[in-house]
Amino acid sequence: MSLAIDLASLLAPDRVSVKAADLDMASHDESSCPATLPDAVAWPLTTDEVSRIVRYAYEREIPVTARGAGSSLEGNPIPVRGGIVLDLSLMNRVVEMHESDLQVTVQPGIVYNQLNEQLKPHGLFFPPSPGGSSDVATIGGMAANNASGIYSVKYGGTRDHVKAATVVTGAGEILHLGTRSRKTSSGYHLLGLLVGSEGTLAIATELTLSLVGVPQAKQQGAFAFPSEKLAVTAIAEMMRYGVDLAAVEFLDRRSLAALNRFQGFGLLEQPSLFVEVHGSAQMVDEVFATATALCEEQDGRLISLPDGRHPWEVRHFTTRAIQALNPQAKTIRTDMGFPISRLPDVVEESYAIAERHDVLLHTFGHAGIGILHALLREDPADTVRWAAANQAKDEVVAFVLSVGGTASGEHGIGLGSRKYVQQEHGEALELMKGIKQVFDPKGILNPGKIW
Amino acid sequence: MSLAIDLASLLAPDRVSVKAADLDMASHDESSCPATLPDAVAWPLTTDEVSRIVRYAYEREIPVTARGAGSSLEGNPIPVRGGIVLDLSLMNRVVEMHESDLQVTVQPGIVYNQLNEQLKPHGLFFPPSPGGSSDVATIGGMAANNASGIYSVKYGGTRDHVKAATVVTGAGEILHLGTRSRKTSSGYHLLGLLVGSEGTLAIATELTLSLVGVPQAKQQGAFAFPSEKLAVTAIAEMMRYGVDLAAVEFLDRRSLAALNRFQGFGLLEQPSLFVEVHGSAQMVDEVFATATALCEEQDGRLISLPDGRHPWEVRHFTTRAIQALNPQAKTIRTDMGFPISRLPDVVEESYAIAERHDVLLHTFGHAGIGILHALLREDPADTVRWAAANQAKDEVVAFVLSVGGTASGEHGIGLGSRKYVQQEHGEALELMKGIKQVFDPKGILNPGKIW
Repeated sequence: MSLAIDLASLLAPDRVSVKAADLDMASHDESSCPATLPDAVAWPLTTDEVSRIVRYAYEREIPVTARGAGSSLEGNPIPVRGGIVLDLSLMNRVVEMHESDLQVTVQPGIVYNQLNEQLKPHGLFFPPSPGGSSDVATIGGMAANNASGIYSVKYGGTRDHVKAATVVTGAGEILHLGTRSRKTSSGYHLLGLLVGSEGTLAIATELTLSLVGVPQAKQQGAFAFPSEKLAVTAIAEMMRYGVDLAAVEFLDRRSLAALNRFQGFGLLEQPSLFVEVHGSAQMVDEVFATATALCEEQDGRLISLPDGRHPWEVRHFTTRAIQALNPQAKTIRTDMGFPISRLPDVVEESYAIAERHDVLLHTFGHAGIGILHALLREDPADTVRWAAANQAKDEVVAFVLSVGGTASGEHGIGLGSRKYVQQEHGEALELMKGIKQVFDPKGILNPGKIW
Repeated sequence: MSLAIDLASLLAPDRVSVKAADLDMASHDESSCPATLPDAVAWPLTTDEVSRIVRYAYEREIPVTARGAGSSLEGNPIPVRGGIVLDLSLMNRVVEMHESDLQVTVQPGIVYNQLNEQLKPHGLFFPPSPGGSSDVATIGGMAANNASGIYSVKYGGTRDHVKAATVVTGAGEILHLGTRSRKTSSGYHLLGLLVGSEGTLAIATELTLSLVGVPQAKQQGAFAFPSEKLAVTAIAEMMRYGVDLAAVEFLDRRSLAALNRFQGFGLLEQPSLFVEVHGSAQMVDEVFATATALCEEQDGRLISLPDGRHPWEVRHFTTRAIQALNPQAKTIRTDMGFPISRLPDVVEESYAIAERHDVLLHTFGHAGIGILHALLREDPADTVRWAAANQAKDEVVAFVLSVGGTASGEHGIGLGSRKYVQQEHGEALELMKGIKQVFDPKGILNPGKIW
């Protein structure tokens, strides 16, 4: 128990725990990766407290894994080598509004939706909405994974919006990275390196984010298509013509069927696109009309969702709906990113591979930025089907890499996608390891991840 | 001469030179930093040739400095420790168009304007136009400095548009970084680190850039204001309200006077904003009207430039015009970036500092992204005035850093801004040095720069 006593002396006794329930909470995320218990959980409140704990851990070579909401999908915050989990959920304040600069400085534990609630009176919002996790995902976790979301097609991903940060390195050192200037060419872009490094290089304790104005007008709509191929071809065409969509989400017919079964939405079970446009009233009409015309060219038609359902209300439940199809099973999931022109090929090839392995694959995602998730649900106890599903996933990822894509569009590598990293990055992986060494000389920060 | 013979055997005799004229050409850039002669200049044609030369240099610890057009403004490509200059100007091809992905793969030596000429038939362009250097600046040089330009207010800087690259490290190793996927969360963002590293980490030999569609409609206009303060306040207001400008450039009255003297433009010598809007015909009208209203709130009025001059034609000559005021003098230049709300303060403070030191300061820049250049022209032979001007620059930069800004908005640190790096980055500088070591273990790539 000396670890608990030491940590309590560094923080406060009521913000350190070695209780089974707390260790269990910190042992897993939303992925199917196996849970591992840490030795202790600590809830720091300040940058100094984080630094103090990391320095303590550095001296003793104890692993330290930072944790947000645990809503990640690749095992990213699972403390595979035990040690200390730093639960940052109490560091959830807005530190400073910079309204005239369209920026805000926050602590990492603030939840995406809660941040946007606080931004609303200022007429601003933080756009990279992490889809179905918006009600739990923290800004720190989003930065760790360079998360994106439905609005990334217009506004970019999390990295595009992180302007400055206070971070604690693996040696416990406090650094200030970046600048509140919108643009800089001064020195190496350490901040961009930190974003997406999954807590393996440093722990962010404050983040300054760029924001955008709440649009004057919005328009949403759903389009149904005769086939998956036509639906995604419509997306590729809209992107090719630079149609200024705020969001364009793809759901295949199986995902829609799962949603109907899950919540009785009564959705038309035809491959669909959910579209949103932002701008002035005039502009929104104009862009939506262009989108409609391009969808119609691919035999898509504008549909109304039953009972006046909102597209994002439906979209929100996609993963949960697919998981509910067979609750005893576990999810095997791809997180593919690829050049947008290959979207139709990726969809076709994914179905062909699944069919070859006789597994059922559901696809959906932020297809406008070339991100698609293929979800397979199998029971690990059925070793034959489990192996077939994993094999199908490997083949889908290999295809995506072969067309110039990436094994992780937005969830990070974590544990779940480590096996693809060598194939994707080749020799560059050695440089990543060298950089890890620079930031975290003893390798204590979230060890065992990415590679 | 053994270096020349060795290099000739690695490339071809006609693509290696030790002639005085060639060494001289490679010894300087457009800054006032002192020239230094390299020992040899080589003109590689392929990634393999670059790798071969760097490997050779690595074994012998010979400095290697990559060079584009030499249009940089902070001494970035001056070979301060001699060695080999790799002139990449012959590697100037479009390697592959990815039209449907709105991407293009190019060699680093291609010139910005020439690239856009080749993109025109595809209805696309590469937006981060480097202002007055667009006719000479190479894409490789722009990536090295993370260049921005007049259109960065809408479309971002160079880093935002580099999706993938082939690079040669300081050990001569060839790496492929990034992905043609629009979004990735796989591994550390090495590519973002390379962009803006001024050739000190690796040499890019191929770059894949994201492009945007040539807008359906454009509208330009110039606004004149009673004072510098009101002009830049109008910019801060337009940014605060998220007015979707493609460009908004600021010129103070002294810059306009210099332009009149240089080319007889007959411009109104009142602080001015040059504005451009991109979009559909309807949208352009709407946005331009909003911009006009916000300018009028600050007592700005829409003016016509004499003889139907185009704003960018005028803007193009700004630096040259200021330099022509006293050709025997040299330029002392700031490259400040800062939070946009501080723009009026930065302008006022800059004038106040210049007045205190009795030096004449001209300001202009991509003020919409919070970048402003203050140019001082003095003769180094007049040691008192030269020292005063340098002192004024230091004070202006210190003020900008004190309000959360950066010492380099877009030109890079090079030699000219090295003295501000410690102040801006503090302890993070040590991590940058560690990263340099990872990419360039013997420190042969463009040594002596940034710090």
